[in-house]
This record gives sequence, structure tokens and C-alpha cells, in this order.
Amino acid sequence: MNNDQKRQAAFIRHLLQSSKNSSPLTPQKACGVGTAPVNIALSKYWGKRDKALNLPINGSVSISLPGLGTETRLKPINAEKDRISLNGKPLADNAVFAERLSRFLDWFRDDRESAFEVETHNTVPTAAGLASSASGYAALVLALDDLFDWQLPKETLSLLARFGSGSASRSLFNGFAIWHRGSREDGLDSFAEPLQVEWPDLTIGLVKVNTGEKPVGSTAGMQQTVETCDLYQSWPQQAERDLQTIINAIKSNDFSTMGKTAEHNALSMHATMIATWPPIVYWQPESLSAMQLVWSLREQNIEVYFTMDAGPNLKLLLQEKDRAAVQKAFQERGIGIEFLHPFSG
Amino acid sequence: MNNDQKRQAAFIRHLLQSSKNSSPLTPQKACGVGTAPVNIALSKYWGKRDKALNLPINGSVSISLPGLGTETRLKPINAEKDRISLNGKPLADNAVFAERLSRFLDWFRDDRESAFEVETHNTVPTAAGLASSASGYAALVLALDDLFDWQLPKETLSLLARFGSGSASRSLFNGFAIWHRGSREDGLDSFAEPLQVEWPDLTIGLVKVNTGEKPVGSTAGMQQTVETCDLYQSWPQQAERDLQTIINAIKSNDFSTMGKTAEHNALSMHATMIATWPPIVYWQPESLSAMQLVWSLREQNIEVYFTMDAGPNLKLLLQEKDRAAVQKAFQERGIGIEFLHPFSG
Repeated sequence: MNNDQKRQAAFIRHLLQSSKNSSPLTPQKACGVGTAPVNIALSKYWGKRDKALNLPINGSVSISLPGLGTETRLKPINAEKDRISLNGKPLADNAVFAERLSRFLDWFRDDRESAFEVETHNTVPTAAGLASSASGYAALVLALDDLFDWQLPKETLSLLARFGSGSASRSLFNGFAIWHRGSREDGLDSFAEPLQVEWPDLTIGLVKVNTGEKPVGSTAGMQQTVETCDLYQSWPQQAERDLQTIINAIKSNDFSTMGKTAEHNALSMHATMIATWPPIVYWQPESLSAMQLVWSLREQNIEVYFTMDAGPNLKLLLQEKDRAAVQKAFQERGIGIEFLHPFSG
Repeated sequence: MNNDQKRQAAFIRHLLQSSKNSSPLTPQKACGVGTAPVNIALSKYWGKRDKALNLPINGSVSISLPGLGTETRLKPINAEKDRISLNGKPLADNAVFAERLSRFLDWFRDDRESAFEVETHNTVPTAAGLASSASGYAALVLALDDLFDWQLPKETLSLLARFGSGSASRSLFNGFAIWHRGSREDGLDSFAEPLQVEWPDLTIGLVKVNTGEKPVGSTAGMQQTVETCDLYQSWPQQAERDLQTIINAIKSNDFSTMGKTAEHNALSMHATMIATWPPIVYWQPESLSAMQLVWSLREQNIEVYFTMDAGPNLKLLLQEKDRAAVQKAFQERGIGIEFLHPFSG
């Protein structure tokens, strides 16, 4: 084991210590089940300070979309290799998704010969472009907790989900969730927890631009940015300040501040990608058309903001009172849009 | 006079001291004429460190496009107000262009009652989107030098042109020009000078996306970026490094390094605009389509790079050997393109 692997093993060992199951790698039932929502970051995670433990350079805050996400069923099986299926279709062992998942599951095999059957179903609507790795690793960790009867608190499961995929740490919760940057070298203080605020008229618009394969995966993209983008030097300070501004705006029900800060934060993250070499531009021509439409709606005093992740789709933030006007504007331009209500799902 | 006006007056007084005309505000002929080319910055100017004297936060380097630019004729007239025409059409006194030009001419009136007739002709091709203020103020300064018979060296005229419009400092020269950042508070060391390198097979492609009015003028845009963009903090260091890299690449005829650095520099400048609040996005959907085409050509080993200024158009950098392939690709996508050869015009 190299040093990274030792730190990873120590991290997992520490988490499993508080399991209610005294032999935490012995299954307690035939099948574990977990479900988790996708989440949209209002202030973004972009850049790792520690690759081995998946620790972020900055904290982030998100809103989960109940009803959209992943359901995962996990069974120990007698086989040489894991059997992984996605939406009912078996995946080849060497599929990127399957390889990454099997490597994650390696930490939870009692014996290296033991294998798992993993059935993953994503419930993502047509107008989506939502990252499924967040809900995927959160659901998997919940399925592990169920299978092994660990009965771990959600914050501990969040640490485990983070180890699989950073943004998955936030998908353990409904509503708003804050993923703390943390400062410990062992990564034990970088978990997410819910922000207990309900916001019934908050509405999310999912704008469909493109569901094709991303040109650059987000892990590789982050690394390229950290290594080649001068402008990224100022990102951590902006990210931490935006995070605090958004948390305060959520607590005080200040939609304008939340929306503005989220849009500025997303555009700034994309700016660091654009200023990377080679450039990382997730935007498509249609993304720009949709942004221009959002800006023109704001000029007409319809208060709508957008955020974007490592892909071409826009996620709109609006209030229920403006939904009809926003829907009409997008439909008139022939741009597909679907609406969701995070607090009345 | 406030302090800014005193500094401006001292700046102009100093420049006119070395005039061959002992009364430098007395016209020596009936009409002064000046012509100057437009220029494309390979490393960009974005942000002023001194607004009163138009001093840049960073140096820049450009290539002029001979044959494209401005011709200006300047006559002293007996009138209450300046008479300014652009491409043969008289402009209203309160037109932004005319007001700015008259304010600049105020520094050169012997008597506040004296007025000028200014005939400005821009020779810009259909597929342009090239800033005419650079060639415009350079041509005007040459016309002033002619009218008043100052016989000032080009570097001094460059200082004067900078005072009218930053990038105009570089339009006094054909070929490559370096605008030095300078460090003096009186602004006397922030002028442009030519870089004496010929590059016969260097080809510029002008991609036409949109010639509409800019949503935000570049002076206002710069100021907004300096004030609200966290990421801008790292811009000056990148700009100075890119400037040096490009100068060295020009001297060693290293097209790849020049092209890469110019594209990265332009994208980084646009990134600081995108990360400004409210966002400044000069890109149009068609700009992104053209960028994607450039990147796909590079994947096919056709070495072409782009740069962009405060507008939606792309300017391509390529070598003559690749012109036909680039032309074909753009024509196939229905994107207008024109080619120019800075060293064989």
C-alpha cells in the first residue's frame, strides 16, 4: 500500500468503527436498498485539495430535487466479478462507470473474492442533464448501510459518499445541504449536513440543451483548471464568500441575493474552465441562447437566475409566481423546460 | 481644473514641448491628413490603472492589418462647433462618437472658440467587427501632427493616441507593436513601439458573427470587471507573462506558442468578463459555434487559433499553408470568413 492507500484505508476503518454491526463487512440481509436525490449546487465545488480522500478546495451548498435521483439495490453474490446494471442494462466490466463503482466497492469486501450485484436505476426526466454520480454514490452508500446494517448517521454516510464522488456528499439529504470544506488532513470533517429551511415557492427550471457525452469529465476538468488556470487562484476566496452569502440568503428568505450569487458563482466557475488550457468550454450555442433569454427576462423584471454545472444545461432558479411567464418565454423560443418544486415534491 | 485635469494638461503640454512648431497650436496648413491601420491584440489590454491618463494595468502586443483602418482629414474652421462626419455622413453634436472626439480635440484648440471639421473614413471589410476607435484615434493624432507640423516621433504620437483610446497607441505602426505598461505616474513611459519582425506566411482570418452594437462599451466593461470580478486579481500577472511569451514566440517564429498563448489570453480576458457582475458576455451562440469549429480543426491537426476582443467576432491566427482548409471548413458551416496577410498587404 502506498501512502494514499494507507490514508484511504484509515479513513474507511474510522468510519466503520461506529457501525452497529460489530463485523461491519458481514452482510446482515440478502439485499440492501438505497435511494437518493440529485442535487444542484448553488455555490459550486470545483477543485480538490486532496485527491486521495476527495477533499474540496472550498465548501458548497446545494438544493436536492426530490423525485429525481437514483435507486440502488445491492446483493452479495458468489461470483468472480461484480455484476452491475444501469437502468436494467448490464454493463461491461470495463465500462468506466462500472470500473469506478467496483473500485469503490473494493473497500467493502470481506474477502477479495466476494462480489456484488448492483442494480442502479436513475429516475431523471427527459429535460435533465443532471449529474447522476451524486445521487448514484449517495444511493449506493445508503444501500451499503442497509445491507451491512451499520445504522450510521447521515453525516457519516455523507463522508463515505464524498469518498465515492464529491458532490454525492450533499445527496444524502432533501432540501438545502451544506458540504463543509473541513480542514482536517484525515478528511473526517468534510461532510454535508442539512440546512433546515423550507422554501415552498422556490421553483427550479430544468432547461434541456444537450444530453450528449461531456467532452471532459469533471474530475479531469478540475485538475486541468487547478494546474493551468491563473484566474483560479482567486476562486477559493470567492467560493467561500459566495457560500456564506447564499447560506445567509436562504436563512433570511432573500431570493434575489440567493439567485444573483448563485448565477455569479456558476459563471465564475465556468470562467475558470474557460481560462484553462486547453480550454474547457461546456457551453453549447444553445446554452448561450438560454442565458440571453434569462437576462432579457430579468430586464423585463421577471426575476429568474440560472446556474450551470460541468455540462451545457441551465438550471433556473425562480419563484412560483413567475413560473408561467418563464415557461411561456422558453416555449416561444422553442427551448425545452421542465419545472420542479424542491419543497412540495 | 481638478487634479485629473491638471495631470492631463501637464501630459499634453509635455508632449507638445518637443514639437518642431514653436507655437504648436497654430495650424501650419489648411488641412491635416492621417491614416492608420486597425490592430488585433495578441495579448489583451483589459483594465486601466489610471483613468485620467488612460494607463493600462498591463502591457499588450498586437498585429496591425494594413489596408484596414481609418483615414482622417482635419481642418480648422470658423464655427461655433466642430463638424464631424463618419464615412461621409455628418454626425449630430451629441452623438457619443462626436462628443468624445470633440472633448479630445479640446486639448488642441488655441482658442476655445476655434473649431475643427473632421472627416473620418473607415475602410473596414464586410466581415469585420474590428474596433475602429484604435485606428480612429491613431489617424486623428497623425492628422493633428500634419496640421500643426509638430513632426513628433511615432512613439510620442503613440502616447497622444493612447490618451484618446488605449488600443490606439498600437495603431501608429504596421506589423507587430508592443504597448508598454510603463510605471511612471505621469504616463510618459506607456507608449507603443514596433517589434521589427516580418512574418510573411502569417494569415489572419476575420470571422463575421455579428456587427450589431456592443451591449457594454469596453471602457465601462473594464471598470465593471476591475470592481466586481474576484478572478480579475490574477489577470495582471497572466497578462504580463503572456505578453513576454508572445514577444519571444514572435522573435523566434514559433507559430504554435504564439497561437496557443494568444487564444488562452483572449479566453482568459473573456473569462474575467463572464465572472463580472452583472455578467459581461460578448459571445453570441454563433461565436461558440465558430470556436468549436476551430477546436475541431485543431483535432484534425490543422493548426488554427483564435482571439476575440470586446465583441462577438473571432479573429483567426493561421499559417498560409492551412488557409484553404480553414476556408473550406468555415464555408461548409456557412460561417463568413475573410483572410488578410499582415506582411504582404
